[in-house]
Amino acid sequence: MKASIILAHPNPKSFNHAIAATSGEQLLTAGWTVNWHDLYAERFDPLLPAEELARDATLPPEIRRHCDEIVSADAIVIVHPNWWGQPPAILRGWQDRVLRMGIAYRFGADGVPIGLLAAKWAIVFTTSNTPRDKEIAMFGDPLENLWTRCVLQFCGVHNTVRRNFEVIITSKPEERALWLDEARQMVAAAVAGTSAIH
Amino acid sequence: MKASIILAHPNPKSFNHAIAATSGEQLLTAGWTVNWHDLYAERFDPLLPAEELARDATLPPEIRRHCDEIVSADAIVIVHPNWWGQPPAILRGWQDRVLRMGIAYRFGADGVPIGLLAAKWAIVFTTSNTPRDKEIAMFGDPLENLWTRCVLQFCGVHNTVRRNFEVIITSKPEERALWLDEARQMVAAAVAGTSAIH
Repeated sequence: MKASIILAHPNPKSFNHAIAATSGEQLLTAGWTVNWHDLYAERFDPLLPAEELARDATLPPEIRRHCDEIVSADAIVIVHPNWWGQPPAILRGWQDRVLRMGIAYRFGADGVPIGLLAAKWAIVFTTSNTPRDKEIAMFGDPLENLWTRCVLQFCGVHNTVRRNFEVIITSKPEERALWLDEARQMVAAAVAGTSAIH
Repeated sequence: MKASIILAHPNPKSFNHAIAATSGEQLLTAGWTVNWHDLYAERFDPLLPAEELARDATLPPEIRRHCDEIVSADAIVIVHPNWWGQPPAILRGWQDRVLRMGIAYRFGADGVPIGLLAAKWAIVFTTSNTPRDKEIAMFGDPLENLWTRCVLQFCGVHNTVRRNFEVIITSKPEERALWLDEARQMVAAAVAGTSAIH
């Protein structure tokens, strides 16, 4: 079994990196293969160029590799901060360039979208500096809808769990350690669920 | 009076470009100054680097110019396609790098956000290939909330109008001409409203 971890934070010492690393460790411990994508570290270019708008576009090798990996991943772990209720631009562009029509989804004869990703589950970890109740009241927590309905469900991944950790900026080391434990347990539970399916 | 037009589409022959050009013409005709930003054409770098996370970061001159312009714009026109219920990465990153804390907003002593943009109105034009009723049913039209509540209202622009044109891919030239007329009239009405305020 193999998982793709997609991480989008500019600071390699960020709590986002710690969450992704913890998730990766847990997957490796369970005997999974991990395709690790620290998008900032690999200098992922998030700009969908005009040439890639065409459905039969020839893709650069690094985009083709991303496409091949995400289509066949048994599970997906996404980690990013909440910036303006959305993922950072580098991950926004990963959606645009990698989750292409004909690769991540297609349309049926009746125009209904058909998801093409093989993943049995996805976990989306996000971080923010807004208290949960304020986030909901002021913005309605757009990331929940964006990831579950607009992106992952659309691509065929119906078993998605999201966990937002907040408030990062005022959190103490003990609190962050508990959050990492929670992340580890969430991955472990998803892995156990996958095993149960097989 | 001066307006900022922020355009995000990779194809210079796109309908998005036509909308932005029409908006610009209408503003110029009304005697306004237009700061024109075709983000793809100017190769805007949307990646917020770690060094710019700090509140007192030294900004590159092109980002500083964007910041100075958007703070003092009397009106803002934004044009982009709906990609995954969100703006393209290049515009997503414009939000991250330009709408900075201390420039586009600040927090009051009680933690309440205070918008710092001077703009009296904003118009957000978006385009999509999903029929309106399907978009609402499947995704809830996340762009409406993202632009109005999460971004513009947060930065102090409370008078925001959004218009989504769809379905672009199957539209005929006559239909697109009508849409451009509508865009022109929306800008004209907003300009008239601004004049009425003064």
